[in-house]
Amino acid sequence: MPEYTIGVDLGGTNLRAAAMDRSGKLLEKDMESHFSPGREELLTEMVRSVSQLRAKFGSGGLAGIGVGVPGFIAFREGIVRKAPNLAFIENFPIRDEIEKRLGAPVILENDANAAALGEKWMGAGKQVDDLVLFTLGTGIGGGIISGGRVIRGFLGMAGELGHVVIVPNGNPCGCGSQGCTEKHASATAVTAMARLLHLGDNLSAKQVDDLAARNDDTGAKAREIWRVMGESLGALIATMVNTFNFPLYLLSGGVLPAWDRFAPAMLRAVEQRSATYRLSQGATRIEQALLGNEAGIYGAAYLPWIEQRAAHV
Amino acid sequence: MPEYTIGVDLGGTNLRAAAMDRSGKLLEKDMESHFSPGREELLTEMVRSVSQLRAKFGSGGLAGIGVGVPGFIAFREGIVRKAPNLAFIENFPIRDEIEKRLGAPVILENDANAAALGEKWMGAGKQVDDLVLFTLGTGIGGGIISGGRVIRGFLGMAGELGHVVIVPNGNPCGCGSQGCTEKHASATAVTAMARLLHLGDNLSAKQVDDLAARNDDTGAKAREIWRVMGESLGALIATMVNTFNFPLYLLSGGVLPAWDRFAPAMLRAVEQRSATYRLSQGATRIEQALLGNEAGIYGAAYLPWIEQRAAHV
Repeated sequence: MPEYTIGVDLGGTNLRAAAMDRSGKLLEKDMESHFSPGREELLTEMVRSVSQLRAKFGSGGLAGIGVGVPGFIAFREGIVRKAPNLAFIENFPIRDEIEKRLGAPVILENDANAAALGEKWMGAGKQVDDLVLFTLGTGIGGGIISGGRVIRGFLGMAGELGHVVIVPNGNPCGCGSQGCTEKHASATAVTAMARLLHLGDNLSAKQVDDLAARNDDTGAKAREIWRVMGESLGALIATMVNTFNFPLYLLSGGVLPAWDRFAPAMLRAVEQRSATYRLSQGATRIEQALLGNEAGIYGAAYLPWIEQRAAHV
Repeated sequence: MPEYTIGVDLGGTNLRAAAMDRSGKLLEKDMESHFSPGREELLTEMVRSVSQLRAKFGSGGLAGIGVGVPGFIAFREGIVRKAPNLAFIENFPIRDEIEKRLGAPVILENDANAAALGEKWMGAGKQVDDLVLFTLGTGIGGGIISGGRVIRGFLGMAGELGHVVIVPNGNPCGCGSQGCTEKHASATAVTAMARLLHLGDNLSAKQVDDLAARNDDTGAKAREIWRVMGESLGALIATMVNTFNFPLYLLSGGVLPAWDRFAPAMLRAVEQRSATYRLSQGATRIEQALLGNEAGIYGAAYLPWIEQRAAHV
């Protein structure tokens, strides 16, 4: 029986699972399913979802299960240290519990790290072993792949790239600092800038993108928002280029459809702030990620293939 | 015969070499020696220096030679891509030439990377596999060790941490950007700030440190310089903490004697700008490096032990 893994993408109240083979071929994907907030509810739904896939492909071939989690992971311990939307599984031996119930080795990973790994395995990063992924949504997250492996940090908190300060006297941030990139370049920041320019109170990034097409004062203001957003994002990317000199930086998330609006300012900012970028003469690529919402589930399914870890079940 | 390696620390017009065993014990150190600018002059002096050590400990036990170079290294190719103070060896197969002349495997490494590796091997980073070293001198350099290995970047330009922008409208930098950390927190920046405050035209970091002890207006100004310098440096360190979540960040170089002057503001800035730092509750260490000018030579001597590379001599 051919070996396969199961990747799980865990949200605050929903999860998706998919079976993949070693080549990254999607064997089968489960519909998104929901659970009520609660540890037992989550575990029950995960067991149901994974078991359903396993029933189809067999227990014998299941090499392992990877789970992407929106939170800080204690990787070795298999514990979620902090997860604002999943507080009910914090500091509980969740990995071991899933292993016990499913009888297969389980690996937990932070969701942005899993997405970066997914892009490296089957997405825009297939050709490289080193990349940084930025996820641009309500906040900004990051995943760093170095030598084909995730940089996790000693407390699982590496890649908090949305909290890199780019504006010393910038907007306040819930993290306790101010001027964090995510307060100036996320979808939420775009909404806030639209409000400041009196374009509307709760415009989505998509709506601000649409406004930018207009040939009037409103259009000019919307375009200026995307220019500022791009410049802010470029400041963060320049810092990462100077730090890593990796060949590839990927963007994903809700603001991506506005790429043409913000990318010119973003690239100018990187060019201006990074001699490393200029010296690489075009070999440093800053591009759109390819897998969208699927990146995390691919990365989760990839984990059992690359992380050496004895099953203790 | 016990195995040993030779580490070479190469400057613009001088070099030092040392033989060490696998445990990091210094077997013998050569006096610093000088060479006239020129490729042949450099090669001759390096061969003389290394041969002298080898004559003492034997050819048979020489496991390899590591060379720390102030420049960008094409690691696999063994070529120095860019080295402002050693332009005469740029883009020449210098590693292969040294190997040919010495008949032993040679590994080139950027000097700040070598220093970071030295601290990891025998200095302040002995207990960890992940650290960032900041070298604070006329400029600011950086070396990043992840999982015990140097992060080099695809063009050997990783760790250009002095060029991370921390002041959007800050001082202009020779790199083409402005507000680079090294224009606000290096020894040179301290000298420039002293000039701006009319304390003197060419004061060294040491002199500004001395002034800061005075109980008058001049002393207050000097202390303010160190506060600003510390805050700038803290901004860079906070960015690295948010990026890596490594357990250890080390400082070395000419400003280190003023540690007590700048460290309080530096640590406050890190605390303010990094939730990751705060959440680690004291487990993230920001400390002085231990090996001083010797770090690079230790790191160079360490390279042959950790880099798998067939000798092609």
